[in-house]
Amino acid sequence: MFDKYEDECGVFGIFNHPEAANMTYLGLYALQHRGQESCGISTADGTRLRTHLGSGLVADVFKDDEIFNKLPGKASIGHVRYSTAGGDSIRNCQPIAVDYARGSVAVAHNGNLVNAQEIRNELEEKGSIFSTTADTEVIIHLLARSQSDALPDRISEALRRVRGAYSLVFLTETRMVAVRDPHGFRPLVLGEVDGAYVVASETCALDLIEARLLREIEPGEMVVFDKNGMTSYHPFEERTPSPCIFEFVYFARPDSTVFGQQVYRVRKGFGHQLAREHQVDADIVIPIPDSGVPAAIGYAEESGIPFEMGLIRNHYVGRTFIEPQQSIRHFGVKIKLNAIREVLEGKRVVVIDDSVVRGTTSRKIIKMLRHAGAKEIHMRVSSPPTAYPCFYGIDTPTRKELIASSHTTEEICKYITADSLGYLSLQGMLEIAGAPRGANGYFCEACFSGNYPVKFPRLKSDDQLGLF
Amino acid sequence: MFDKYEDECGVFGIFNHPEAANMTYLGLYALQHRGQESCGISTADGTRLRTHLGSGLVADVFKDDEIFNKLPGKASIGHVRYSTAGGDSIRNCQPIAVDYARGSVAVAHNGNLVNAQEIRNELEEKGSIFSTTADTEVIIHLLARSQSDALPDRISEALRRVRGAYSLVFLTETRMVAVRDPHGFRPLVLGEVDGAYVVASETCALDLIEARLLREIEPGEMVVFDKNGMTSYHPFEERTPSPCIFEFVYFARPDSTVFGQQVYRVRKGFGHQLAREHQVDADIVIPIPDSGVPAAIGYAEESGIPFEMGLIRNHYVGRTFIEPQQSIRHFGVKIKLNAIREVLEGKRVVVIDDSVVRGTTSRKIIKMLRHAGAKEIHMRVSSPPTAYPCFYGIDTPTRKELIASSHTTEEICKYITADSLGYLSLQGMLEIAGAPRGANGYFCEACFSGNYPVKFPRLKSDDQLGLF
Amino acid sequence: MFDKYEDECGVFGIFNHPEAANMTYLGLYALQHRGQESCGISTADGTRLRTHLGSGLVADVFKDDEIFNKLPGKASIGHVRYSTAGGDSIRNCQPIAVDYARGSVAVAHNGNLVNAQEIRNELEEKGSIFSTTADTEVIIHLLARSQSDALPDRISEALRRVRGAYSLVFLTETRMVAVRDPHGFRPLVLGEVDGAYVVASETCALDLIEARLLREIEPGEMVVFDKNGMTSYHPFEERTPSPCIFEFVYFARPDSTVFGQQVYRVRKGFGHQLAREHQVDADIVIPIPDSGVPAAIGYAEESGIPFEMGLIRNHYVGRTFIEPQQSIRHFGVKIKLNAIREVLEGKRVVVIDDSVVRGTTSRKIIKMLRHAGAKEIHMRVSSPPTAYPCFYGIDTPTRKELIASSHTTEEICKYITADSLGYLSLQGMLEIAGAPRGANGYFCEACFSGNYPVKFPRLKSDDQLGLF
Amino acid sequence: MFDKYEDECGVFGIFNHPEAANMTYLGLYALQHRGQESCGISTADGTRLRTHLGSGLVADVFKDDEIFNKLPGKASIGHVRYSTAGGDSIRNCQPIAVDYARGSVAVAHNGNLVNAQEIRNELEEKGSIFSTTADTEVIIHLLARSQSDALPDRISEALRRVRGAYSLVFLTETRMVAVRDPHGFRPLVLGEVDGAYVVASETCALDLIEARLLREIEPGEMVVFDKNGMTSYHPFEERTPSPCIFEFVYFARPDSTVFGQQVYRVRKGFGHQLAREHQVDADIVIPIPDSGVPAAIGYAEESGIPFEMGLIRNHYVGRTFIEPQQSIRHFGVKIKLNAIREVLEGKRVVVIDDSVVRGTTSRKIIKMLRHAGAKEIHMRVSSPPTAYPCFYGIDTPTRKELIASSHTTEEICKYITADSLGYLSLQGMLEIAGAPRGANGYFCEACFSGNYPVKFPRLKSDDQLGLF
Repeated sequence: MFDKYEDECGVFGIFNHPEAANMTYLGLYALQHRGQESCGISTADGTRLRTHLGSGLVADVFKDDEIFNKLPGKASIGHVRYSTAGGDSIRNCQPIAVDYARGSVAVAHNGNLVNAQEIRNELEEKGSIFSTTADTEVIIHLLARSQSDALPDRISEALRRVRGAYSLVFLTETRMVAVRDPHGFRPLVLGEVDGAYVVASETCALDLIEARLLREIEPGEMVVFDKNGMTSYHPFEERTPSPCIFEFVYFARPDSTVFGQQVYRVRKGFGHQLAREHQVDADIVIPIPDSGVPAAIGYAEESGIPFEMGLIRNHYVGRTFIEPQQSIRHFGVKIKLNAIREVLEGKRVVVIDDSVVRGTTSRKIIKMLRHAGAKEIHMRVSSPPTAYPCFYGIDTPTRKELIASSHTTEEICKYITADSLGYLSLQGMLEIAGAPRGANGYFCEACFSGNYPVKFPRLKSDDQLGLF
Repeated sequence: MFDKYEDECGVFGIFNHPEAANMTYLGLYALQHRGQESCGISTADGTRLRTHLGSGLVADVFKDDEIFNKLPGKASIGHVRYSTAGGDSIRNCQPIAVDYARGSVAVAHNGNLVNAQEIRNELEEKGSIFSTTADTEVIIHLLARSQSDALPDRISEALRRVRGAYSLVFLTETRMVAVRDPHGFRPLVLGEVDGAYVVASETCALDLIEARLLREIEPGEMVVFDKNGMTSYHPFEERTPSPCIFEFVYFARPDSTVFGQQVYRVRKGFGHQLAREHQVDADIVIPIPDSGVPAAIGYAEESGIPFEMGLIRNHYVGRTFIEPQQSIRHFGVKIKLNAIREVLEGKRVVVIDDSVVRGTTSRKIIKMLRHAGAKEIHMRVSSPPTAYPCFYGIDTPTRKELIASSHTTEEICKYITADSLGYLSLQGMLEIAGAPRGANGYFCEACFSGNYPVKFPRLKSDDQLGLF
Repeated sequence: MFDKYEDECGVFGIFNHPEAANMTYLGLYALQHRGQESCGISTADGTRLRTHLGSGLVADVFKDDEIFNKLPGKASIGHVRYSTAGGDSIRNCQPIAVDYARGSVAVAHNGNLVNAQEIRNELEEKGSIFSTTADTEVIIHLLARSQSDALPDRISEALRRVRGAYSLVFLTETRMVAVRDPHGFRPLVLGEVDGAYVVASETCALDLIEARLLREIEPGEMVVFDKNGMTSYHPFEERTPSPCIFEFVYFARPDSTVFGQQVYRVRKGFGHQLAREHQVDADIVIPIPDSGVPAAIGYAEESGIPFEMGLIRNHYVGRTFIEPQQSIRHFGVKIKLNAIREVLEGKRVVVIDDSVVRGTTSRKIIKMLRHAGAKEIHMRVSSPPTAYPCFYGIDTPTRKELIASSHTTEEICKYITADSLGYLSLQGMLEIAGAPRGANGYFCEACFSGNYPVKFPRLKSDDQLGLF
Repeated sequence: MFDKYEDECGVFGIFNHPEAANMTYLGLYALQHRGQESCGISTADGTRLRTHLGSGLVADVFKDDEIFNKLPGKASIGHVRYSTAGGDSIRNCQPIAVDYARGSVAVAHNGNLVNAQEIRNELEEKGSIFSTTADTEVIIHLLARSQSDALPDRISEALRRVRGAYSLVFLTETRMVAVRDPHGFRPLVLGEVDGAYVVASETCALDLIEARLLREIEPGEMVVFDKNGMTSYHPFEERTPSPCIFEFVYFARPDSTVFGQQVYRVRKGFGHQLAREHQVDADIVIPIPDSGVPAAIGYAEESGIPFEMGLIRNHYVGRTFIEPQQSIRHFGVKIKLNAIREVLEGKRVVVIDDSVVRGTTSRKIIKMLRHAGAKEIHMRVSSPPTAYPCFYGIDTPTRKELIASSHTTEEICKYITADSLGYLSLQGMLEIAGAPRGANGYFCEACFSGNYPVKFPRLKSDDQLGLF
């Protein structure tokens, strides 16, 4: 399905390009699916940083040509993010740009730290002030307090203090630095175009600007770009990498390559595996568009059951939608999806979704399918039950809200009123995604297994889990 | 492909519903794909008409709750339309609402008249003034000049003067009238919800408001809704119906039923037929999303070649896009589509598009596919060559611009750099769409055959064809 | 005081200037005080008319440079107007531009017709439709129905049918026409700049573009501008001119010359005369800014009582103002004006206002002055009691709302809680404004005397007077 | 004249009022003349701070009713400020709200520190980061680094480090604190309404909300508002007060009382004194509106020469103004002012302006007056020559740009093409403003005398003076 998670974020950076701000704009455009609520671009012209930020889509925040005139310089970083509520949310936009003893620095961050509050408390005790609620500001404070002379040293000193997930791009007057945490939770790739280096959350951003993919930034790697070119560092203690498997399930765009794997291919593989694990006698396989499409194609291919588009998505769904006020009806999912009776009527239907969160949307979709005449509805989910919240950058609901945290598959099946329900097995998923059999460690699959690669401070109640 | 035609328009009407304006808003929302540039809603409360219009998407023009407070009444009509240039385009928004001797009337129109200019000249000779460039205003003038006492008589008197395509919804203080031209060029359906009657261009609008489809408004039928219910008239000389086949090719939403046929099913049938007509030895079938998807599924099904999504569409493409200024690159289609190398590399690819207009976009897409590693590219088009402009409501390019008007399939194939190119045959298309074999007459396929069901005044040059 | 009347409108036209649209923009800018709710500009480039309209101030509606690129041509007319309510108010913006048998024509109108409804009914009977509620549309219909070949004939034929107040500027593809009704109710002046002719409601518009005032357009005069220059006609039966005296009282900008008289000088003269008619023993004279300033200077000069600015106006008052919700206070006039205690305390104060409508604002201001310590408050009004509504272009309240229509000066004085109240006499006002003694006829002073120069259809109730 | 200085700022605070945010909105509305580029409001509800900020006028930034719903709490502070360029200017809006070890704090600041950069460098050395370019952030850092337990101690500890001009309002979850620097450069008054305490830059803000003026916050005084009421502290070493005389010359609204003096009265006194110092044989006295009006009234009164409004101000001048592009004319001051020929023609005119900065505007106005027929033009300036930049909160041009810093009065007179030019003497100004004869110390008149009450770090070049 779609819009079911508060998406995480996307970052982009380009160094040594005559149209740096404009290329960043394009890169963010391609990463828009990772965050629709605000965005920003910082540029460096050798002596000064400049930043433009705003709430809204990239195409709206940067709709005036003249904004680009105010963003000169051959180096630039950018960020797309999901929203926060409140009138002062503008302060939480990224890149965050500050002045400190060594000059200016701007930062764009994808990820979440687990010890941010702890360090924040400690820094506040020492007199620091915080103008945002972002973890990112903690990193900047640590960087600014570092006594090291060299920028790479300051950054690595700062990052050795934090634990959690981060794919970061820093920009100073003269340098750009890209870092990925030792676990490599969030993706970050390195490319090249017109002699300029590019970093981006996903390869689709490289594709749009016709940059060539060089390689992933490795887990624990820090890459510094300056007038002398690119220098790679590995300043952190080595950790077992644990890239986020959910990028394959939902986040990444299907045309991207993340963690060395092509997303569409992996999703289709999930579908193949799902078909092997949960066969069913049926007439058609339909996806819940758009995220369920590749897995449904895979399921159809493997099972031999014909693939159909039985649900049509309305692509004009906007941010605001005014429901009839006195009406007893609620439009919810109908606004976004419509079922085709002629495809569904009298059919035994396999419905492929990428994941199930609260179960309420699945329930509504199944009701819609039945209303359109489906005889049997077999829900197949191309990931295991989502039973644990994420602490590394995805704003999942709290445990309480995750239906799989307190209900068996059978109970969920009953709740969503499906005729059958099958989840992809964790083992099956990991195999497809490329983890060596038995080596659960390779991916972070904490949201499915509760097996968190990076420990976090004990929380008083389960409810607070959602606050991260 | 998408956005390749200046879409036509969409109309909606509801009579006797306590939330008429809000239901119209929802209906237009579902018809948004038929026109994205402006929209409007008129309501009637028994004594007065009120109208709200604006440029932009439905969700933007009607984003303020309080607009609905200013649109009271139990009857309402609405319109979505494609744009015109110029600062005064606001005058061309619909519904057009005017006062005349018998009170007020608002009209929403989908279609184009072929003798509008002729009548306009004649009316101007008699002293009429025109504040818009829309054909619709001609109809209102004729209506106002009618000496008949009864509204249905005035409307039919007016419409007997005009020739061409029209699906119209009229609203007066106390009545709503829906009319479809004798040829039935453009679709119009009748539904029912909560005891209220609904008319809409497509059934997807009924689905969203949970209205039940009763039937099509028939070609040449006029239906009057008032406090006594619904009355049907057939005031026009009977004609051979010629509904627009292009609704199936491109315009209608796949989840709609138009002219009694389910669109997705017809499109898939086009794919089946296309496979039969233009077989090719290939590894995968991919659609140009979104309009090519059903035909590609059909082609894959019939040919046995696996269906894949090798091109991914960026759904955040906005109205404004700022291209890098000094760049030699042009982003064009890349902004909207990206190719997946891993799906395409080394493959013989069948690409399904719904139609080809100028050929320039096809050419760019094929270049993109080659760049992503496709070994062979076989373009298959799920309609015949578009060689003639439309005069009945679709803003196609002029003949000169239509590549098929002056080039053979072989030449086009060469221009777009495909390895092979196959168009669906006209006969094949008509059969699938349900026309009895040999009875070309059932559909209007003028854009393919040049066989125009309604004659139009001789034009001085081919170029002017595009001005309609 | 200010904002107390729904202002009337302002018109502007320029012919044969290379920057016609831009000069019109400047002209409207200078006429902004005559209408703040919407504005528009039409241009003609010899073959085509183009129009840009919008709600809001001139500087906002025309804030994009590129709008001017879409308004080419060496002839242009413009309009500023007061608002109407409702979502479709955009249709009521001017210039109104239409096509008719002889081409295109745009019209900008200042004034009101008394027989518009009558003619409208008649035209509707003949089949005309009306898309606006403006009188102006009636004129265009009449023009379009004229059988005369020459434009001047068509215009004069049309205007001979209507009665009331009009200063009009027409624009066709190749010509501009300016007309003033035979009574000359509303002002219209003729100027010249860079070899181009200019017409405008007030001379302040000429001043801004550095045009030279040539003369007034005379009552009953029609001036046609075309490639051959300027031609003057007098197509109407001669009438006793009756220009609107209220232009001197309130509407016109003090730096303008209207009806051959300099406004500031006339207003100051009203102050002189007021001092002669209503002397009072007092310590200071203060105006209600800004419209009361010249008369207060005049009163002070004549009476020898010192002039002071005891009330300060807040110039940042915007369109929207959010009052505290639970508060018992109402801010009303306080938002706009503040009294200076140190100027007022213990003083006997003469307060000069230009006119009194409902009395409610005067009452609030007097309360504010007393609160600031004024010992005595003597209200002096630089016009006679406003007791009758206007039917010639000023949107005054209905009779019922005009306090002077049903109350004596003594009663009004008591209501507004002044210590004394004196109105300028009608005779005094006319003398100062230049009317020959005894010749009441020269000005229209109907709002003071009820002596309407142009008769209008009998209305059923007094209340309807306000609807004009 | 107007708009000639980048205005300084305005602050407002209210404690213990049920409609705190709304009262702050009103207060800022009244202080709008002190800063038109951005504004903001913070509120405290006992446990949390909330802030809404934006670019634009108060009425625009807070135009939505619902913003106030998001600003609950009985304490609130607000700020209006002049602009800075650049896309990230939003970060410079105030109040600045941060979290630190003791909770949250928001600050609104009017003034400028002379050692901000020095302390900023020092703090950056210690690892602090700065997200704005405002001096205010330095104060917050110092506050956060204080080890004192009590808020008043932390604030006074922080402020003892800084030198310069500040009128500050702090807001925490439960308290409000108002402070004025020991020199009392900028104004700050204390009032009371409905049992709530109010602080504001000028009394006109108290007037609007019908608050009673209690007294000035004294130079060097800190007032803490909490649940126990109000407590006054004097935590700083005593200094000779030196309130900014320019508040009387230009900044403050004429209806305000600042530094215990009524502004209108002082300005009029300047006019009296100016007449005594620079008599001239003339026919009329005219002000350059609006700031020159009181002094002109004073000059006229003292000299016996009649007061007239010979220049009319256009009150609809907006932020954007599009000049004709190919035109050789420049509109500049004409857009804002127009001269009345009938008042000026053949007259010997005394023109009163409040101050002269570059001389260019005076030159244009004099040209305009001559063009309107003035025979002689005697410029009289109601303040001494402005020859030195301000370092305490007014964004004056650099020395180089101040015409009086390098030219004699005679030279300036020639440049502006006046027949004579007279400035108010420093001594005369100080006497009128209430400084004891000989005690130059009472006011800061550095911009006239170069006698800066607070020393600042040596600057490398004169040019940099403008950067403060």
